[in-house]
Amino acid sequence: MTQSKKIAILGASGYTGAELVRLISSHPFMDIVALGAERKAGMEMSEVFPHLRHLNLPKLIKTEEINFNNIDLCFCALPHVTSQNIISKLPNNLKIIDLSADFRLRDTSEYLKWYDCEHQAPNLQLEAIYGLTEFYRDSIKSARLVAGTGCNAAAGQYALRPIIKANLISLEDIIIDLKTGVSGAGRTLKEGLLHSELSEGSHPYAIGGTHRHLAEFDQEFSKLAGKSVKIQFTPTLLPVNRGIIANVYVKGDPKLIYDEFEKIYSKEYFIKLLPFGETPSTRHIRGSNFCHIGVTGDRISGRTMIIVALDNLTKGSSGQALQNANLMLGLPEEMGLEMAPLFP
Amino acid sequence: MTQSKKIAILGASGYTGAELVRLISSHPFMDIVALGAERKAGMEMSEVFPHLRHLNLPKLIKTEEINFNNIDLCFCALPHVTSQNIISKLPNNLKIIDLSADFRLRDTSEYLKWYDCEHQAPNLQLEAIYGLTEFYRDSIKSARLVAGTGCNAAAGQYALRPIIKANLISLEDIIIDLKTGVSGAGRTLKEGLLHSELSEGSHPYAIGGTHRHLAEFDQEFSKLAGKSVKIQFTPTLLPVNRGIIANVYVKGDPKLIYDEFEKIYSKEYFIKLLPFGETPSTRHIRGSNFCHIGVTGDRISGRTMIIVALDNLTKGSSGQALQNANLMLGLPEEMGLEMAPLFP
Amino acid sequence: MTQSKKIAILGASGYTGAELVRLISSHPFMDIVALGAERKAGMEMSEVFPHLRHLNLPKLIKTEEINFNNIDLCFCALPHVTSQNIISKLPNNLKIIDLSADFRLRDTSEYLKWYDCEHQAPNLQLEAIYGLTEFYRDSIKSARLVAGTGCNAAAGQYALRPIIKANLISLEDIIIDLKTGVSGAGRTLKEGLLHSELSEGSHPYAIGGTHRHLAEFDQEFSKLAGKSVKIQFTPTLLPVNRGIIANVYVKGDPKLIYDEFEKIYSKEYFIKLLPFGETPSTRHIRGSNFCHIGVTGDRISGRTMIIVALDNLTKGSSGQALQNANLMLGLPEEMGLEMAPLFP
Amino acid sequence: MTQSKKIAILGASGYTGAELVRLISSHPFMDIVALGAERKAGMEMSEVFPHLRHLNLPKLIKTEEINFNNIDLCFCALPHVTSQNIISKLPNNLKIIDLSADFRLRDTSEYLKWYDCEHQAPNLQLEAIYGLTEFYRDSIKSARLVAGTGCNAAAGQYALRPIIKANLISLEDIIIDLKTGVSGAGRTLKEGLLHSELSEGSHPYAIGGTHRHLAEFDQEFSKLAGKSVKIQFTPTLLPVNRGIIANVYVKGDPKLIYDEFEKIYSKEYFIKLLPFGETPSTRHIRGSNFCHIGVTGDRISGRTMIIVALDNLTKGSSGQALQNANLMLGLPEEMGLEMAPLFP
Repeated sequence: MTQSKKIAILGASGYTGAELVRLISSHPFMDIVALGAERKAGMEMSEVFPHLRHLNLPKLIKTEEINFNNIDLCFCALPHVTSQNIISKLPNNLKIIDLSADFRLRDTSEYLKWYDCEHQAPNLQLEAIYGLTEFYRDSIKSARLVAGTGCNAAAGQYALRPIIKANLISLEDIIIDLKTGVSGAGRTLKEGLLHSELSEGSHPYAIGGTHRHLAEFDQEFSKLAGKSVKIQFTPTLLPVNRGIIANVYVKGDPKLIYDEFEKIYSKEYFIKLLPFGETPSTRHIRGSNFCHIGVTGDRISGRTMIIVALDNLTKGSSGQALQNANLMLGLPEEMGLEMAPLFP
Repeated sequence: MTQSKKIAILGASGYTGAELVRLISSHPFMDIVALGAERKAGMEMSEVFPHLRHLNLPKLIKTEEINFNNIDLCFCALPHVTSQNIISKLPNNLKIIDLSADFRLRDTSEYLKWYDCEHQAPNLQLEAIYGLTEFYRDSIKSARLVAGTGCNAAAGQYALRPIIKANLISLEDIIIDLKTGVSGAGRTLKEGLLHSELSEGSHPYAIGGTHRHLAEFDQEFSKLAGKSVKIQFTPTLLPVNRGIIANVYVKGDPKLIYDEFEKIYSKEYFIKLLPFGETPSTRHIRGSNFCHIGVTGDRISGRTMIIVALDNLTKGSSGQALQNANLMLGLPEEMGLEMAPLFP
Repeated sequence: MTQSKKIAILGASGYTGAELVRLISSHPFMDIVALGAERKAGMEMSEVFPHLRHLNLPKLIKTEEINFNNIDLCFCALPHVTSQNIISKLPNNLKIIDLSADFRLRDTSEYLKWYDCEHQAPNLQLEAIYGLTEFYRDSIKSARLVAGTGCNAAAGQYALRPIIKANLISLEDIIIDLKTGVSGAGRTLKEGLLHSELSEGSHPYAIGGTHRHLAEFDQEFSKLAGKSVKIQFTPTLLPVNRGIIANVYVKGDPKLIYDEFEKIYSKEYFIKLLPFGETPSTRHIRGSNFCHIGVTGDRISGRTMIIVALDNLTKGSSGQALQNANLMLGLPEEMGLEMAPLFP
Repeated sequence: MTQSKKIAILGASGYTGAELVRLISSHPFMDIVALGAERKAGMEMSEVFPHLRHLNLPKLIKTEEINFNNIDLCFCALPHVTSQNIISKLPNNLKIIDLSADFRLRDTSEYLKWYDCEHQAPNLQLEAIYGLTEFYRDSIKSARLVAGTGCNAAAGQYALRPIIKANLISLEDIIIDLKTGVSGAGRTLKEGLLHSELSEGSHPYAIGGTHRHLAEFDQEFSKLAGKSVKIQFTPTLLPVNRGIIANVYVKGDPKLIYDEFEKIYSKEYFIKLLPFGETPSTRHIRGSNFCHIGVTGDRISGRTMIIVALDNLTKGSSGQALQNANLMLGLPEEMGLEMAPLFP
């Protein structure tokens, strides 16, 4: 019988950290043996996240108090910059999945440009494997350090990677208009994230091509196309906690696009292609690791809209991380991730 | 001193009817003398809409019970098809503002195509003036029958009319990705409109160029451009009750577009152009007749996104109707419509 | 190795039916072999509940099409009245868990009084075991027919059973002020359940001692006390989909009450007693089978408030039903119910 | 013709400050001539509250920059403690309405007990008139300094003052179970007020008789009864921005109570007594200065529940303040406050 893997989570007091705990608590072959947090070290997890009070969890401690010798895999759910500093000090044979933005980009100058600071661990940046499971599965299996993708970046890539690769769309006219829940912004104290400011309304943000996940789109789509690809991307904040839904507008034939998706995604457990012309909803993937994809044509021929729905905290972040962890540890990829979405 | 105008509202048991009552209750020169409703005839307005219980309102009655002789203006907030049937039987010198879709299109074949039924009052369809106040002001002043615009159609036209007319954008590449509150669907008993189905999530609907407000876009933009213009338009349902926010993607120079908006909108009381690069929000126009417009460029040169926010029940429907009523009755256009939005 | 139990669910097109499917889909020893629905018979479950599209489920069929011979246990998630009619025609050796109100009351005259119709299967009403697991565990194990409790009735009884039994409170002054999510009203087409009517506000309903779950309180509390006990109970509708939180006001000593809860609930896996003076929240049990209980005193001595939070669809209904099914089938009580709540 | 009154608002960057601006912007005889803010001094109001961008408002400045000589009335919407310090330095003939807790209590020892700090302006505390308009109208008319009530305190008093005074209920058994929107907590950066923490759920807070508005209940009810009255009061946070709804449980005859309310409230413009047995809702008073009151009996005779709904930012705070300002300035009490609630 498989022996349980020993897991550490750094940054356990944030939403992606708590989501990892939620998911791993149902995983049959993983045990959480260490929970790291900086400001909240010394507290019980049940004080920081009372929804986890039924679990028997280790107390939150500082990273330096963790003994990594008997850890099989470490999730790092820290803010960017902090993440690279801490990971560069961890044992260099420790399997790590980083959920921050720090190891997503291969090019340090791009990191500097988008994140406005010099990278402190450029070697690790080169070593890291990009964590979009369905497209980097083989590399992830043998990776030591995997960089979880941006949640929006995941949604956009599920819509676009297959059809950029198959050369089915114009590369000049790609627009991602994406709506996202609030939890993507984390548990940060900002006036704009207060309930009174956010609920009962909606607005776009990071407009004009300034959202940092564009760096991932640029890197990945240009690699696939073999030339520089720049897309338009606008996120809009929804007054809901979880869920991303992206309308992706492209020029290309809807049927050819649908066929390509069928070819690529029919074998994927977590990616569900809807019947042609049907519309996904964030409500139908909430709390799960599933990603629903819809494809429709338009009354204008040669136009296609792809609609992608996923849960930013699960498939867009901690669920993806656990999926990758399963691969890195030789476990079945779906293990601990098969729960149905929560509706209503 | 101006004498109060006598107002009738047909369809008073729906949301746009109730919104008319709310607005008119603060209007210094209008009195509601008749409230029509079909299924709920015989009830008090306070039973149908308890938020109006402080008002001294006439009881709901059937249309045929209303004496239109001493009515100065009649608002018709009925479903389409019902609306044309009832309006065609009203006195033909009665000033009417129709809030349904029945008189928005000049071309009966377009009406048939989009609304899937033969128009029963084609003469009135020709007589009606399209009610987008800022662009049809002079005709509305002398009109007998005004057709209120679709709420989404209003939002899209505020973004696009000035720059189509000024020839500032490519007509082949216009995309409106619009998010709308639930009240736009009315007080209809549909499973998909239940709180349990709609809240805490989001999804697009009427995808693929099938939304009926496209008929208005086609008619108006083609007239402005002097040739057939077809745009892409996708609405997404927000889990909020009020508010529309539209991201309008065009190919054109952002500064020229901004300048044109400044020229056109600086004299408009209800249209507020935000400083270049700023983002409107539905929260900041809720319950008011204001429309906020933002303009931004993109990292890709020659691309512009226009963002329009308005309240679907107010500026997108009943507020617009009252603005037009003021014009038709020789009253100041803003009268009764100057209240500030409700935030938070 | 345990062989999988064959499960049928009648009323699969409602929320409690869908919740049963969600839960059972993670149960290691249950297989859903039949899904019954009346109006939606013939449809796929993925059309009725797209969040379940990843599951391989039988098509919805009418009850009469189901072969009950090889069913180990049947959940009945139908409306009351319908439920008694259908259950009375099922094989009389079939294990059944009914989620409706039809078999909760032992006294047919009470059923007539509260539900305003003559019971059609009084023998079954006598046979049925009341399904509040923690207090009827032994009877449930050997029961053939179990009646799931009302969701509000469950919440109130967790607060009151131990201290009524231990004679710790005045029986004359019990008030349950309970707040409940919308899904408790089911997937019913009522104007009052529309998003536009329900969201962004709150109101009590069934005021004045008229809510039907009072029948269960009367029955159970009177049995425990050995004399007639009548309490006050007011539910208030929350603009959220899931979750019940009850403030239960009693006259009694807070420390004695807390000690009694500790004694009774410390051995219960799903009931979590919070440290004295702490406050539960519906957010911390959402989507799970856990019930959080808080106890506080008041500045007025001799007054205690007990606060109970549970998910109406899970612990208050379908989760309770599955917990009971495990008992009836000889499986571990917690099986398939250990998932953590979904937060945020 | 009445000349416009010159108004200053201190604390204009908070929600009650913004609500004052919203309301006064529709007042025919008030002009806002100064807006004070401490941290946000130097900013335009449209930057701090973009929903007010259509108004022509003075820039935010520090209190010391305001010339109070030509101010007719000053609203003070600052946090408690700050408020007493600033008000004690204002000209002692300036008419002031304070919206903080600083001048609600006559007894400095009670202030110390509930607010945990020594009062710095005890003379002003004695001078201040309690601002519950309907019950202190005459004193307010001639007052120089009026202390706005707590929003919860207002709701509870509308339910209880008439029937305590008329000796219709037992004073030993009063329970207020109140639900309140989030905006009552202000625009404060606290983790618990984030959208991700608050939305989609509910929980009580300040349990056990610890909420500071109890100080107002104690003071006012004891004064009315002529002896010490202590009630139980539990607030529960609703995931909505505006609105309070209170279930008030008393022992007393429902018909006598209803009659007393009719006697007291029938002449009040803003207090609407619903027909016996009907239920108010926060949705039906949102954004307005109206207060809806419902009364019901119970199946247990001699028990009555009173239900009060008001908007915490309007009738519970800034609307009340404007109502009082009208009285202090010799204007009609309802002026600028007659707008209908916003629904949906």
